Amino acid sequence: MQYYSLAVIPGDGVGPEVMKEALNILHVIEELHGGMKFDSQTFDWNCDYYVKHGNMMPANGLEILQDFDAILFGAVGSPLVPDHISVWELILPIRRRFEQYVNMRPIKLLHGLESPLRNKGHDDLDFVVIRENTEGEYTNMGGRLYQGLPYEMALQNNVFTRFGTERIIQYAYDYAEHHRRKNVTAATKSNAMNFTMTFWDEIVKEVSGKYPDIHTNLYHVDALAAYFVTSPERFDVVVASNLFGDILSDLGGAIVGGLGIGPSGNINPEKKYPSMFEPVHGSAPDIAGKGIANPIAQIWSVAMMLDHLGFKEAYDLILDSIEKVLIDGVFRTPDLGGDASTRELGNAIANTL
Amino acid sequence: MQYYSLAVIPGDGVGPEVMKEALNILHVIEELHGGMKFDSQTFDWNCDYYVKHGNMMPANGLEILQDFDAILFGAVGSPLVPDHISVWELILPIRRRFEQYVNMRPIKLLHGLESPLRNKGHDDLDFVVIRENTEGEYTNMGGRLYQGLPYEMALQNNVFTRFGTERIIQYAYDYAEHHRRKNVTAATKSNAMNFTMTFWDEIVKEVSGKYPDIHTNLYHVDALAAYFVTSPERFDVVVASNLFGDILSDLGGAIVGGLGIGPSGNINPEKKYPSMFEPVHGSAPDIAGKGIANPIAQIWSVAMMLDHLGFKEAYDLILDSIEKVLIDGVFRTPDLGGDASTRELGNAIANTL
Ligand SMILES: CC(C)[C@H](C(=O)O)[C@@H](O)C(=O)O
Ligand SMILES: CC(C)[C@H](C(=O)O)[C@@H](O)C(=O)O
Repeated sequence: MQYYSLAVIPGDGVGPEVMKEALNILHVIEELHGGMKFDSQTFDWNCDYYVKHGNMMPANGLEILQDFDAILFGAVGSPLVPDHISVWELILPIRRRFEQYVNMRPIKLLHGLESPLRNKGHDDLDFVVIRENTEGEYTNMGGRLYQGLPYEMALQNNVFTRFGTERIIQYAYDYAEHHRRKNVTAATKSNAMNFTMTFWDEIVKEVSGKYPDIHTNLYHVDALAAYFVTSPERFDVVVASNLFGDILSDLGGAIVGGLGIGPSGNINPEKKYPSMFEPVHGSAPDIAGKGIANPIAQIWSVAMMLDHLGFKEAYDLILDSIEKVLIDGVFRTPDLGGDASTRELGNAIANTL
Repeated sequence: MQYYSLAVIPGDGVGPEVMKEALNILHVIEELHGGMKFDSQTFDWNCDYYVKHGNMMPANGLEILQDFDAILFGAVGSPLVPDHISVWELILPIRRRFEQYVNMRPIKLLHGLESPLRNKGHDDLDFVVIRENTEGEYTNMGGRLYQGLPYEMALQNNVFTRFGTERIIQYAYDYAEHHRRKNVTAATKSNAMNFTMTFWDEIVKEVSGKYPDIHTNLYHVDALAAYFVTSPERFDVVVASNLFGDILSDLGGAIVGGLGIGPSGNINPEKKYPSMFEPVHGSAPDIAGKGIANPIAQIWSVAMMLDHLGFKEAYDLILDSIEKVLIDGVFRTPDLGGDASTRELGNAIANTL
């Protein structure tokens, strides 16, 4: 029997609702598998916690998390707390402190779903966005001058290190070589961001030189976003900076069926620290409490966690079950055009397992 | 008779090919109208020029342009010259020096074209992206440290001034009030870019307070990009920073029929300096010289110029003619699924006028 410790942070809004279904799936998998056991501990770190304590997590929050084998995250964000606080005090420190420098987001049209793109089907929509997750445009470095005066200005630094850039691009090429179709597309904007993105391009060139059998495309992010709509079939592994990867992966979610579906892994490939798995979607305050949020993104995130821990069959099994339920079409949450509840869709997937 | 001086910079690649058709349309309009006359001068400032002279334009290039009433720009970029040079030495200085702080990009599905979005038609796809065009993420400020060493890093500053931010947001609200459906969507990313984009949000709030009858939405750019695909009908005026506006407007181009269609105006609203009109697409070296580039984006850019100079009827007439030719469907360039040449499509529009 293999034991794993799991930190669960359901968060705000629909987070706890979809997390419940995801944990239920995890229990079913444990039973079916028989050789793994998750010992999970739930943390109530969210915006309510902030309102009570003045921080999103306790001062030793990161120390506490450090000893877990993995982290399951729901979503944070509430009208009670400015977004930049909820984000910079919880999810971004976790990504950074635990060197989860890979943010992996599969863009895959599941069977049973239709793409909003008129002429694109399952074969056209199967790639991953690999996003840098610890530096780049999200630096918390900068400030304001002349606050309140007509000359006021705000600065934010984009910081690209060789260390951080090399490791994400290297990861993308390795991934393309071992797990995908040997095709890497790098998102740049070196025509306009003349310091950081020319640097990025140079490193893409250096790394690609070591993989002669991998085909590389370097596109400006504006054109790339357009290609996601006009010709998504050209993508296999898309590697992008923190901000560009954020935008492209949400857009990717949209072309494969909307925000309720897409999972993500915040991965520390060296496994020195816990990795964290979370839906791409946010806390969705507008539908929170109604029990109608789509649990698939959170359930798929559990599958990614299992894959990361070495249980590829469990990943496949969960994905298969999700697809069977979608093909079946009886249980669909409102975002998928049905009227099933979170619970009903979650149960349907559990039963199919 | 009203006289206008027009600077024409065809640029590289397909630029000169589509410019020819656009100028032909302009001549037809002059004749039909009878009361306006354009005196145009062509400048060969492009990548070939750079190879010969070591600059993209002469040292007094901006002084020369300053005296024109408007500038028509094709596209620049060639494998001969790094993109960041061709851009930072020609188009970006023009945008900045002439305070063309508004980059206006209509996102409108023309009659005769089909959107790649399965369930979206003409009524769903009719908005504009108003992009800040002089500061923000494109600053040319930053640099490199420890070049070639493992500790190497590149920095780029995002700079948002109150002056620059207020004037673009103000413009968007005025435009929504006087020319559109009184609905403004602002693109932000204040959850992650905690200095610049929180500043942006504050100014959106200040300006929106002065327009109680305008409905405002503030969305994070990642979600916004997804909404372009899932629910474009919610947009009327989208206002965004330089980089976000760049990405969103290319994406917008994709959902209304591809890169060969969309025009843009780089506008100095005060008319203190010439404004510049150009297609959203680039120089497309892959199809350059074949005579098959779609001239519609460049022709529509001429229409925007005429509108800017006060000839709204000429704008409408050109748009009508483009739409008639598209509905007719006989002359379509390859990007639109036909086999017409640039010349044939250009002529068809001219004849329809
Ligand atoms: C050439 C490039 C710098 C430019 C930009 O990003 O502004 C282009 O993409 C555009 O949108 O006009
Ligand atoms: C909450 C926000 C800062 C975050 C991001 O942009 O990284 C989210 O959009 C995501 O993609 O995980």
